[in-house]
Amino acid sequence: MSDFRSDNTHGASAEIIEAIARVAGGTVASYGSDPITARLRERCRELFATDLDILPVFSGTAGNALAIAAMTPPWGGVFCHDEAHIHRDEEGAPEFFTHGAKLFPLPSRDGRLTPEQVARKIDEIALEGRTAKPACVSLTNATEAGTIYRASEVRAIADVAHSRGCRVHVDGARFANAVVSSGESVADLTWRAGVDILVFGATKNGAMAAELLVIFDRSLTEELTIRWHRGGHRLSKMRFLSAQLDAYLADDLWLRNARHANAMAARLADGLRAKGVELLRPVEANVVFARLPRVPEGATLYEWALYGEHVYRLVTGFSTTAEEVDAFLARL
Amino acid sequence: MSDFRSDNTHGASAEIIEAIARVAGGTVASYGSDPITARLRERCRELFATDLDILPVFSGTAGNALAIAAMTPPWGGVFCHDEAHIHRDEEGAPEFFTHGAKLFPLPSRDGRLTPEQVARKIDEIALEGRTAKPACVSLTNATEAGTIYRASEVRAIADVAHSRGCRVHVDGARFANAVVSSGESVADLTWRAGVDILVFGATKNGAMAAELLVIFDRSLTEELTIRWHRGGHRLSKMRFLSAQLDAYLADDLWLRNARHANAMAARLADGLRAKGVELLRPVEANVVFARLPRVPEGATLYEWALYGEHVYRLVTGFSTTAEEVDAFLARL
Amino acid sequence: MSDFRSDNTHGASAEIIEAIARVAGGTVASYGSDPITARLRERCRELFATDLDILPVFSGTAGNALAIAAMTPPWGGVFCHDEAHIHRDEEGAPEFFTHGAKLFPLPSRDGRLTPEQVARKIDEIALEGRTAKPACVSLTNATEAGTIYRASEVRAIADVAHSRGCRVHVDGARFANAVVSSGESVADLTWRAGVDILVFGATKNGAMAAELLVIFDRSLTEELTIRWHRGGHRLSKMRFLSAQLDAYLADDLWLRNARHANAMAARLADGLRAKGVELLRPVEANVVFARLPRVPEGATLYEWALYGEHVYRLVTGFSTTAEEVDAFLARL
Amino acid sequence: MSDFRSDNTHGASAEIIEAIARVAGGTVASYGSDPITARLRERCRELFATDLDILPVFSGTAGNALAIAAMTPPWGGVFCHDEAHIHRDEEGAPEFFTHGAKLFPLPSRDGRLTPEQVARKIDEIALEGRTAKPACVSLTNATEAGTIYRASEVRAIADVAHSRGCRVHVDGARFANAVVSSGESVADLTWRAGVDILVFGATKNGAMAAELLVIFDRSLTEELTIRWHRGGHRLSKMRFLSAQLDAYLADDLWLRNARHANAMAARLADGLRAKGVELLRPVEANVVFARLPRVPEGATLYEWALYGEHVYRLVTGFSTTAEEVDAFLARL
Repeated sequence: MSDFRSDNTHGASAEIIEAIARVAGGTVASYGSDPITARLRERCRELFATDLDILPVFSGTAGNALAIAAMTPPWGGVFCHDEAHIHRDEEGAPEFFTHGAKLFPLPSRDGRLTPEQVARKIDEIALEGRTAKPACVSLTNATEAGTIYRASEVRAIADVAHSRGCRVHVDGARFANAVVSSGESVADLTWRAGVDILVFGATKNGAMAAELLVIFDRSLTEELTIRWHRGGHRLSKMRFLSAQLDAYLADDLWLRNARHANAMAARLADGLRAKGVELLRPVEANVVFARLPRVPEGATLYEWALYGEHVYRLVTGFSTTAEEVDAFLARL
Repeated sequence: MSDFRSDNTHGASAEIIEAIARVAGGTVASYGSDPITARLRERCRELFATDLDILPVFSGTAGNALAIAAMTPPWGGVFCHDEAHIHRDEEGAPEFFTHGAKLFPLPSRDGRLTPEQVARKIDEIALEGRTAKPACVSLTNATEAGTIYRASEVRAIADVAHSRGCRVHVDGARFANAVVSSGESVADLTWRAGVDILVFGATKNGAMAAELLVIFDRSLTEELTIRWHRGGHRLSKMRFLSAQLDAYLADDLWLRNARHANAMAARLADGLRAKGVELLRPVEANVVFARLPRVPEGATLYEWALYGEHVYRLVTGFSTTAEEVDAFLARL
Repeated sequence: MSDFRSDNTHGASAEIIEAIARVAGGTVASYGSDPITARLRERCRELFATDLDILPVFSGTAGNALAIAAMTPPWGGVFCHDEAHIHRDEEGAPEFFTHGAKLFPLPSRDGRLTPEQVARKIDEIALEGRTAKPACVSLTNATEAGTIYRASEVRAIADVAHSRGCRVHVDGARFANAVVSSGESVADLTWRAGVDILVFGATKNGAMAAELLVIFDRSLTEELTIRWHRGGHRLSKMRFLSAQLDAYLADDLWLRNARHANAMAARLADGLRAKGVELLRPVEANVVFARLPRVPEGATLYEWALYGEHVYRLVTGFSTTAEEVDAFLARL
Repeated sequence: MSDFRSDNTHGASAEIIEAIARVAGGTVASYGSDPITARLRERCRELFATDLDILPVFSGTAGNALAIAAMTPPWGGVFCHDEAHIHRDEEGAPEFFTHGAKLFPLPSRDGRLTPEQVARKIDEIALEGRTAKPACVSLTNATEAGTIYRASEVRAIADVAHSRGCRVHVDGARFANAVVSSGESVADLTWRAGVDILVFGATKNGAMAAELLVIFDRSLTEELTIRWHRGGHRLSKMRFLSAQLDAYLADDLWLRNARHANAMAARLADGLRAKGVELLRPVEANVVFARLPRVPEGATLYEWALYGEHVYRLVTGFSTTAEEVDAFLARL
């Protein structure tokens, strides 16, 4: 069986399970005052080479919606890609957490926003005056189209945002894949490029259920902590969430998992190209869009009508094997 | 060290960790379409001896707020105890998820509402006409005061609620402790007594982070599923939540853990009484309120100003040992 | 002076002021239980030739947002024109009253939606599944572009909406202008065409501040009455609102005023065309879009950047005079 | 007929109607940029002897909810009297406009809060930590019980509020009656006493539908202006609202009307006392609560079950006549 449905159909890395097991005994302070969470914060400060705050959450939807709500008043405007998960896949979570902000979905072929496009739309809305108050620019890196933003691209968009009074959110559900693909540092891809909050995903890349709000603009933390609690996203036994994230960052597990997933996607893409299959988007992370004559027996994957007829999305994960890829290609 | 701060300072039962480890490999459908979640649903139908729907969540605050929102329009009224977790400890989560409903906190000494008290308040609000539309009665079982409702008491309150157009929610953060203490069946304590949704807690009783919305009024499920997703509470790798709950219910782990915690609380209460310490509430579950001259060295616990001067709350958990209890008593 | 800024820069018809003065004495029941409101309801039932409910409000923004909220859950989708007042000019009022619904603005050159366009977008969103639940189609008649929908066009769109589980709202800020222009009956343009709620505007056409929610789908009335009150839109001295609307509908004042405004717009358009000025949209109501080399002295009007460089919007009202129009044309 | 149901069953003063008629012709800028609104602002600055901002609205519910929302985050706490209109009569408008804040209704016999009571409750909630963040203290002056706050009493409560990080709102639906009764200046009763926003009522005292947000803490104005628009409370033809308020304040109409209403209430109270009728609250404004054996023929008034059996509320207004009062007393 070759399962390319999503990276969230995969299980969890052994290191993550072991970390959970290791912290399961004894009593510790609840709600985030435990030593594991403290260690995680230190690890993040080192990794990102800056002071920052963290709030662990269980789901990416929660992380994104909380981050956006921290930046956006109920009458605010959020500028994002038309295929953004926050717009397409969250049943309106950003609208819920912001109490009614307006998303402005912007189209592009490769899932990336351009600075010009963002500037033009913000300026249009600001000129209208009564549509919404521009408040937040939201990027997904790696994008929903399987491409990535490089640090310079993030920087260019963040400059546009900040110069117009907006803050910058990055949906990093596949941030590890973008880091590996770009070869750039997490600092360069985030706060040095002007990102205010990163939602650093771990679930899709080997954790059970763990995402991390990495807050670079620390003026947002106090209110965000209330929203986090009020939204039901502050775990009492926080250690079980922090331990996943701590193990994820320790010994470069996150990089190893992402490198593997990206390599499997590249292998898949190479194989498809070799067979003359049309790939609809550049393959820069762990997602491949291909026009397939038919789905080979023994494979599971999703059709992607948004990109045209007979188009499928193939996602590789940390536990995808080369055998799965090759078997898929062989049976095509 | 004797740690009586809360049952959420405890870790997780070995069975829970093993269950997690067991399901960590391979790919399965995400967002709840996996076989572990299906098995959990079947297990619940058997345990409760009725048809029902389930939605797993990872926090009790989320479970409660979602359940209440499913029953209560934005202009609705929720009738609960003045010490209810939903009113006192959730930063307004029910108000957030309902989009502004009004809680009517009702006082009593032992944490329990009476049918007469609930009837009187609902009737007053209904008569006023423009305060709120009575919509939901929320009980906590076991209560925040460490007492329990018996099935007949739940029934009497639910009858009052239903006859006045309200639905009934049970915050079951310590439901296992109430079941064990009452000796009554889960069916008798819930749907047979008129409960519409139970939030069945596992976190405080040995899970890592797992609560279960048990929906007896299945007309609420469709909309609740959207709210669940939109609130960021629908896990992609649901298996890791369902596996915890499945192991919790298998082989009576939940009952064994709760029996132990209750026994430790009884041992503590007996010891305190023997030493002439005043207990402020009946000890019917795993929580003890005591007026202590001082906190013994090596013990951690919370002061409970709401109940008077020098009053402390002592909570036992699944991993509390008799030694801890005895050491505490000895050092008092 | 020629003032073409908007129809809301005009004052109020003498008949409206006289009606207010007539009901100013004595005491009557408040909050809508007065005889003037009862008479207004009867008048509406006759005019629309059907049973219906009414809720008078002071502002069009309120009327639209309330109507849409009555049809749309917090996770619902609203399909409207990209230039719709509800999207562009209300600071997110629909998002506020619905608690976070999502608007899907659809472009077109003449301000009108087509049934095909609406069907395509609803189907796309329904297929995506997690973006929003299609709930409401909102039309503006006359449109923001100064065009009108005929009954058959409304019907075609309403059929698309209803067959896909959506209800239909009409923003009738300039409904009188559309009725006069189409020559069709109010029944044909609304409930017979499938409209569920009309917000029947009077403010822009000679009232001081008065709009009427005309509710054809009476299953929406009970909840809408609560939202109306909760939003601060239920006047205590309702007679002063109902009297305006009653006078507006009596003796065809609304039709006379709209006929005059439309005639003034036609006169303006004819004069502009005669001078070789480019008109950017068909002139079917009381709004003219023209590319002007310069704004003549003594004239006030708004630039309309959305439609291009040097484009201006010219709106005529019930108190616009032929002299104003001619003076404007002369000075051009 | 003697109509004592409410001051909102009365019509409008001749001066108000004349003012409306006077501004009905010609075109002026809409949405509040007109000269009448500018004049009203100047008049208010003189009357209150300070710099301030104003936002006219047409309902008291809107005014209160907007003011409270400007001071209170979604997770904030609002401290008010248990009989406050904002809690009892607005279908949850404050919860709607604040996006879910929590009201803490405090009881007292005479409708007035005491500084001690407010301090105690704020401190309790602040200590709990997770119930709500104390944000706003809301007073009604004159109170719902027909009593008034003197400037020193407002000051004492405002000091408690400010020292605990809360702002102060005054629901002044019957503010004129309080001013007349206290003999104190509007400045002393508001900003000099620490009030941040007053909702200055005119509707109950002779206007058609007009209330004024008087904003002393001008840091709140910018955001409040957006909420005002987004709530559908910003009139396009603002002149018709501002003209009412301007006439209300001109030539002391507001004081004359309130003096008359208060005098009629005093006459009623004296007559009732003379007949041995029990009055349940001090009569300090234009509201009388009396235990009546029966309702005299020809009289309309509301029973007030909250205050006991056979208790009725009698409200006098600007158009109540001495004959009405005397006829009522005679027929008792």
